[in-house]
Amino acid sequence: MKEKGILFVLSGPSGVGKGTVRKALFEQDTELKYSISMTTRPIREGEQEGVDYFYRTREQFENMIDENKMLEYAEYVGNYYGTPKAYVEEMLDKGHDVFLEIEVQGAMQVKQNFPHGVFIFLIPPSLEELKNRIIDRGTESEHLISSRLDEAKNEIEMMEAYDYVVVNDDVDHAVRKVQSIVQSEHCKRERIAKQYKQLLEVDER
Amino acid sequence: MKEKGILFVLSGPSGVGKGTVRKALFEQDTELKYSISMTTRPIREGEQEGVDYFYRTREQFENMIDENKMLEYAEYVGNYYGTPKAYVEEMLDKGHDVFLEIEVQGAMQVKQNFPHGVFIFLIPPSLEELKNRIIDRGTESEHLISSRLDEAKNEIEMMEAYDYVVVNDDVDHAVRKVQSIVQSEHCKRERIAKQYKQLLEVDER
Repeated sequence: MKEKGILFVLSGPSGVGKGTVRKALFEQDTELKYSISMTTRPIREGEQEGVDYFYRTREQFENMIDENKMLEYAEYVGNYYGTPKAYVEEMLDKGHDVFLEIEVQGAMQVKQNFPHGVFIFLIPPSLEELKNRIIDRGTESEHLISSRLDEAKNEIEMMEAYDYVVVNDDVDHAVRKVQSIVQSEHCKRERIAKQYKQLLEVDER
Repeated sequence: MKEKGILFVLSGPSGVGKGTVRKALFEQDTELKYSISMTTRPIREGEQEGVDYFYRTREQFENMIDENKMLEYAEYVGNYYGTPKAYVEEMLDKGHDVFLEIEVQGAMQVKQNFPHGVFIFLIPPSLEELKNRIIDRGTESEHLISSRLDEAKNEIEMMEAYDYVVVNDDVDHAVRKVQSIVQSEHCKRERIAKQYKQLLEVDER
C-alpha cells in the first residue's frame, strides 16, 4: 500500500555546476536519498569509499555491467562511472525519493529504465545571457551572439528529453528551484488521485 | 517576445479553506496578481470595493454575462459571483502570473477558456485522514470509514480535472506547496524550450 518514491535526475552540459548544486541541496535537504556513483578511477586524497564514490576495479565494474546491475554507466578518460541499480530500486520501493546527479548520456540511459522519473536539466547562465542578448539585440555585436549559437542549439536539443529546466545563475536559486520541483511533484494529481482510488477500491471489496 | 504569464487556479470543495490559504499566500508572495471577484451581494462592514470584491448590481452583472465579459460565474444563495475577463487577460499578456481562488464550478468554466492554466485542488485533511484510517484498518471502526466514503468519492472525482492536489492540513504547509507549484511550473521544459527555440529561429533569419 506504501507509495513508491520518486526518482529525480539532475543533469546538464558538462561544467554547468551539477555537483555544486547537488552538494548545496544535500546540505539542506535530508528527505532525498542520494545515490552514490561507482567508479574505477583511483580514490583521491580526502575522498571516502561510500561517501564520494564506491571505488571498484575495472574487472568488478565490468562484471556489474555484464550482470545488468548498472542503471547507467559511461567511460570518461579511461575510467568507468555509473549508478548501481540495487540502491536506487531498494530506496524507491521503500517509498523514499532518490536523487541522481549524472552526465547527460547517463541520464538518457536512466530514462529508458525509469520513464516516470523526473528529469531536471541544469543550464548555464550563459544560455540565459544569450537569450537576453537576443532580446536586447542591437546593443550587442551580432558576431558575439552567433559564436554562441551552435553551442546553444546543442544544449537546447539536449533539453528536449527533460521535464524541467533550471538556470544555474546562482547556486541558492537553483537549489530552491530543485526543492520546489521535488515538492510540487508530490502534489501532482496523477500520483495522489491514483493512491486514493486504490484505497477506495480496496475498501469496496 | 515577452513570455505570457501563467494562470493559477486554486479551488476545492466548499469549506476546505481556499480563502484562508489564498490570504496567507498573498501575505507572503507579491509576484502573483490576484484577480478580484465580482459579486452582486451587498458590501459588508469592513469590506472595500476593489479589495474584497467588485460590488455590482444584478443588472450590471447580467450585462457583463451577456457581453461575454465574465471568465466564469455562478449564482449562490441568490447572488452572482464571478471573475471578469479583462483583468486576467491583461495581466497574463503583460507576463504576470494571475491567481484565482474560486469554487469548483467556476474552475471548470475557466478550464474551458484556459486549458493551459494550472489547476490546484485543495483537499480537506479529513480525506487524508480517511486514507490513513484505511491504511491502518483494523484500528478504526469500519463504520466510521464507510460513512465518509461517499463524500470522499465525490471529492476524488472532482480532483480529476486538476493538475495538482494540495492537502490543507496546515495553512503554512499548503501555502508552501502552492508556492512550490508556482515556481516549478516556471521551470517546466515545454515553457522554457519553446522560448529558446523562438529566439534561435528569430536569429537564424
